[in-house]
Amino acid sequence: MALLDENRLFSPDPVLRRLSRDLYDTVRDLPIISPHGHTDPQWYAENAAFPDPARLFVTPDHYVFRMLHSQGVPLEAMGVPRVDGGETEQDPRKIWRLFASHYHLFRGTPSRIWIDHALQEVFGVDQRLSSETADAIYDQIDDCLKQEAFRPRALFERFNIEAISTTESAIDDLKWHRMIRDSGWGGKVITAYRPDAVVDPEFQNFAANVEQFGEMAGEDATTWQGYLAAHRNRRAYFKEFGATSSDHGHATARTEDLPQEVAAALFDKALRGVCSEDEADTFRGHMLTEMARMSLDDGLVLQIHPGSARNHSDAIMARFGRDKGYDIPTRTDYVHALRPLLNTVGERSDLTIILFTLDETSYARELAPLAGVYPALKLGPPWWFHDSFEGMIRFREMATETAGFYNTVGFNDDTRAFCSIPARHDVARRVDCAFLANLIATGRLAEDEAFEVAHDLAYRLAKQAYRL
Amino acid sequence: MALLDENRLFSPDPVLRRLSRDLYDTVRDLPIISPHGHTDPQWYAENAAFPDPARLFVTPDHYVFRMLHSQGVPLEAMGVPRVDGGETEQDPRKIWRLFASHYHLFRGTPSRIWIDHALQEVFGVDQRLSSETADAIYDQIDDCLKQEAFRPRALFERFNIEAISTTESAIDDLKWHRMIRDSGWGGKVITAYRPDAVVDPEFQNFAANVEQFGEMAGEDATTWQGYLAAHRNRRAYFKEFGATSSDHGHATARTEDLPQEVAAALFDKALRGVCSEDEADTFRGHMLTEMARMSLDDGLVLQIHPGSARNHSDAIMARFGRDKGYDIPTRTDYVHALRPLLNTVGERSDLTIILFTLDETSYARELAPLAGVYPALKLGPPWWFHDSFEGMIRFREMATETAGFYNTVGFNDDTRAFCSIPARHDVARRVDCAFLANLIATGRLAEDEAFEVAHDLAYRLAKQAYRL
Amino acid sequence: MALLDENRLFSPDPVLRRLSRDLYDTVRDLPIISPHGHTDPQWYAENAAFPDPARLFVTPDHYVFRMLHSQGVPLEAMGVPRVDGGETEQDPRKIWRLFASHYHLFRGTPSRIWIDHALQEVFGVDQRLSSETADAIYDQIDDCLKQEAFRPRALFERFNIEAISTTESAIDDLKWHRMIRDSGWGGKVITAYRPDAVVDPEFQNFAANVEQFGEMAGEDATTWQGYLAAHRNRRAYFKEFGATSSDHGHATARTEDLPQEVAAALFDKALRGVCSEDEADTFRGHMLTEMARMSLDDGLVLQIHPGSARNHSDAIMARFGRDKGYDIPTRTDYVHALRPLLNTVGERSDLTIILFTLDETSYARELAPLAGVYPALKLGPPWWFHDSFEGMIRFREMATETAGFYNTVGFNDDTRAFCSIPARHDVARRVDCAFLANLIATGRLAEDEAFEVAHDLAYRLAKQAYRL
Repeated sequence: MALLDENRLFSPDPVLRRLSRDLYDTVRDLPIISPHGHTDPQWYAENAAFPDPARLFVTPDHYVFRMLHSQGVPLEAMGVPRVDGGETEQDPRKIWRLFASHYHLFRGTPSRIWIDHALQEVFGVDQRLSSETADAIYDQIDDCLKQEAFRPRALFERFNIEAISTTESAIDDLKWHRMIRDSGWGGKVITAYRPDAVVDPEFQNFAANVEQFGEMAGEDATTWQGYLAAHRNRRAYFKEFGATSSDHGHATARTEDLPQEVAAALFDKALRGVCSEDEADTFRGHMLTEMARMSLDDGLVLQIHPGSARNHSDAIMARFGRDKGYDIPTRTDYVHALRPLLNTVGERSDLTIILFTLDETSYARELAPLAGVYPALKLGPPWWFHDSFEGMIRFREMATETAGFYNTVGFNDDTRAFCSIPARHDVARRVDCAFLANLIATGRLAEDEAFEVAHDLAYRLAKQAYRL
Repeated sequence: MALLDENRLFSPDPVLRRLSRDLYDTVRDLPIISPHGHTDPQWYAENAAFPDPARLFVTPDHYVFRMLHSQGVPLEAMGVPRVDGGETEQDPRKIWRLFASHYHLFRGTPSRIWIDHALQEVFGVDQRLSSETADAIYDQIDDCLKQEAFRPRALFERFNIEAISTTESAIDDLKWHRMIRDSGWGGKVITAYRPDAVVDPEFQNFAANVEQFGEMAGEDATTWQGYLAAHRNRRAYFKEFGATSSDHGHATARTEDLPQEVAAALFDKALRGVCSEDEADTFRGHMLTEMARMSLDDGLVLQIHPGSARNHSDAIMARFGRDKGYDIPTRTDYVHALRPLLNTVGERSDLTIILFTLDETSYARELAPLAGVYPALKLGPPWWFHDSFEGMIRFREMATETAGFYNTVGFNDDTRAFCSIPARHDVARRVDCAFLANLIATGRLAEDEAFEVAHDLAYRLAKQAYRL
Repeated sequence: MALLDENRLFSPDPVLRRLSRDLYDTVRDLPIISPHGHTDPQWYAENAAFPDPARLFVTPDHYVFRMLHSQGVPLEAMGVPRVDGGETEQDPRKIWRLFASHYHLFRGTPSRIWIDHALQEVFGVDQRLSSETADAIYDQIDDCLKQEAFRPRALFERFNIEAISTTESAIDDLKWHRMIRDSGWGGKVITAYRPDAVVDPEFQNFAANVEQFGEMAGEDATTWQGYLAAHRNRRAYFKEFGATSSDHGHATARTEDLPQEVAAALFDKALRGVCSEDEADTFRGHMLTEMARMSLDDGLVLQIHPGSARNHSDAIMARFGRDKGYDIPTRTDYVHALRPLLNTVGERSDLTIILFTLDETSYARELAPLAGVYPALKLGPPWWFHDSFEGMIRFREMATETAGFYNTVGFNDDTRAFCSIPARHDVARRVDCAFLANLIATGRLAEDEAFEVAHDLAYRLAKQAYRL
């Protein structure tokens, strides 16, 4: 039995299916460009075996544990570590069985597609995961993980990854990236500059972070000029490890372009921990413009990922910490929020700003019209919960007519679930081919053009936009 | 001639049509679970004949009279009663002819499907309603209504309703429910606890309502503790008549968890009629949390129906009163609004909170992500204007990928139009089967699983979620 | 080679394609009713030849130049005139080649469909525009433009335009309309009353505009009563040139119905240039209600086009002025914003208010519920960026179930791109036929009814709603 339908995500209509298939056949084996994501550089650096099926598929994947939790399964039972180091399930087989017995919850979700894809294509599993098959599949994966061929670097090569970016904090020492570089291994693993910890006055330990930041950069980062210099220094350092982009995860899309003395005064308040909520937001907004100005000098692509209400549950935050599936999308305004930034640098065609959203209502209304006119702007692919079959289709349907294809930047897998990378790119390629097939069949695009666009969406656009 | 296409709401694509049909054939005859609605318990209690076609199909159905009114037909002409008791059309045949002559207005609307279904399946009508056929169809229905087989209880049984919930105010004496129970009739008609009249400081006659509420409960409801005790008492009373849920229709989704003394002080201001608008909203928000706490004790499912701007036209409100088709959906924020409630009880898996929305933009952005992680939360089906073919498809497409099927609760007909109940459940079953067929055909779900899900959506989930 | 697929925009499903085609064949050749748009009356008045391909297709079309600009092409290079009269490209062939070499950017956009349609159907072009074909196509169009048959009036007749409305400012002297009328030419070109320049206190030169307005009307427009009288006078004047509608482009949908003395005082502040932003918005909102009251007297249809954040880039505004592709849609609230207007005149069935939106989220949530109950309200077709295949489908899917077809008003091309008029109406007719085909195939509408509705949407509704 195959878990995967060869023609999955293609319309059953014979015309559409044939066109989709023909397009897909030309892009399915293209190398993977993964310009934004959260895989762990330690994997590639140490190339150690992944420990067991549960710690590969369940414990670190917030899509997975949030779904089981929504049906009453405690996070502890899935081995999610507690902040206080207290007891959690440690037996990987028990965790796996729990996961398997709840696998029906994923019906109709992208996780189901990603996991089935990884099970079949990476581990050769040919039966559906369930309580009945849990042990056999566990053993099959576990056997694999003990083999050389399933170590991170081998999988990286097997996945045909041409380049992958991880994401590191501005105060990360990049030691794993250094180790990768020094190892002589040929895999292209680069970093990206994520300065939230030293840009967001509300970030935990902001002042201490800035101090450490200054030390790492050899600048007195407690002065405004020293702080900016430290950014320039760290960005240059990140570029040594391949960085071609910075990334910014703010609660809103607000931008500001404050007079320097106002920004300096705000920075001072931020360091002293006396910013109001609005002042913190103003400061973050201003820093996007500063980052854009630095990008004009050093060429880093600026990515903005706004609009997540993070750590929605106080109880979960207290017990398990950040990134536990409780980050919820919110409505996000772009038109007014981005105006200060765009008035400053939006007309620069030597700058690339990539916008993401968790608010799909902005695709057709705000993002496509903005990206369809400002030279500096491009649209990132569907993000997070919207990184799914329906979500991707909605993105193409709502953004393409106004922004076209060439103001978009291909696909991001944006994942920390390593084995899902081929699955996610495969889904994106299939969806795009299905979308293009529909354009051909409805007379909106010629067939020869569609083949070119399919290739652009699967490969070229990501490479160009991220300067890879 | 048949009014209804046997394969209505299924794609014309042969693959999808066959799959849809196969799935539908297994659920079409399942009993109806109707866990939330507004049918009149007096019907089941007295089992009197419905008076005439106009008062069955036109006068009480706001979907119908709002559409005719939008094209200039005065509400009086459709027999809608005036607040001042003034003159309105009383001749049911005239009202029916008026309706028939405007029946083309319903092209492309769910009302058209519901009414055609009732005409054909309940009354055996086989010609399209129009000026030409108005009298013949009127006579045909009128003849039926005089027969025993068309009395409420007979129709209830013929409709294969396993359980239906009405909705009563907290200050309703439930006399019709008592009469049903005492009648010995076997139909399962239960009530639901709707305390808006004593929870919303802006409700007409709030203070008098609270006084009456206290009297009914044998508590001094003018004190905060007595007021809470009265709720507990009335909830218990409603449970005697089968209630398994409470229901809350607030202008916003705001929730609060105030210190008890703050809540008590607000309650006092509310009773004295001196709440500001914001204080009234705060109080309503706090009462949702109090209701949730009571649910932890008594097991009632908590339903929240927020976001309707009610009685939009002052002139219509003054002349005809509430519920005259002038309740208009508004944008609703859930992420911030629900946080106080969820921080208090959201992690409880022994509690069920069912969320509804009139703002479809929240499906993918807020509701599915919230229901996909909080154990206490489930998503109610598309509500009101969105309870339609396209509306239901959008719900499945936007909610399923993040919340899955098992954080949803099946279908609600939510109607006061008795003859439309089978039609509405039929539409929901067809839409869900069409959606599942598409998942199968695009390789997103295995066929055996789809059959199980179809059954879950048509029957099991409603029964489980509402504890019926 | 044909640029256009005969069955474009129809589903490849054979059932849907046949139904779509059958419906379309009955409406494709109906005369064009164009009740709202921005063609230049000077064209029809002087009937001069269009100058060259670039100045026909590129320089005046903001859809075109914004897309090239988004990829870094300076507006100057496309001949867009500068505010300071500075240098811009003047060679039409160079501009055309630039356009041709970027034509791939329009893949998947409505501009591609409109332009291909104009190239093939108006100018007989049969090869795809590209760098290779640029010169040949330029020559072919240029040859045409020198012929009598390609002058504005000849094209008007060839396009089968039964009536077209231009849009003029309240302080326009309508001299071109007078010249058309006096010419004896039979083409029906009418004007529409657009008073933004004298209604919006934030409009450039508001006070001077009002003074000129008073002079043209023979009223002292600096007093509130004189100002209202001047509106009545100018509306009557516009009616002499065929106007059947007024049109209002406000930043928000806000309406007010202020006491007259409050409105008078605001007007006085507006004239003195001392309105706050909020007061300006209040005044604009109140003027919508005044306009509606005048419509009750003179029968003009009231069109509201709210929600565009105009001139988003300060740099572009300073260098090139208004209407340069930098008007970006924003979220728009209708439910609360329209209440004052609707409470005043919404129940009048002798008034027609046509609502437009750039915020698609309001279709199902707000606009359809409002238009589906208020006798005065109708929904305008998808506007601006949403005037596209996907945009029109979304409109029908989201608005029809609640508003029906008969609270909509057919199609507006809303264009200043003359040669795109047949293309745009053709797209609208195809989309509507495709939508109706789907209703038939899914049993939601009988075939005979769909043919009637197709005709209504393509022709009758626009004629009726706009009183043409």
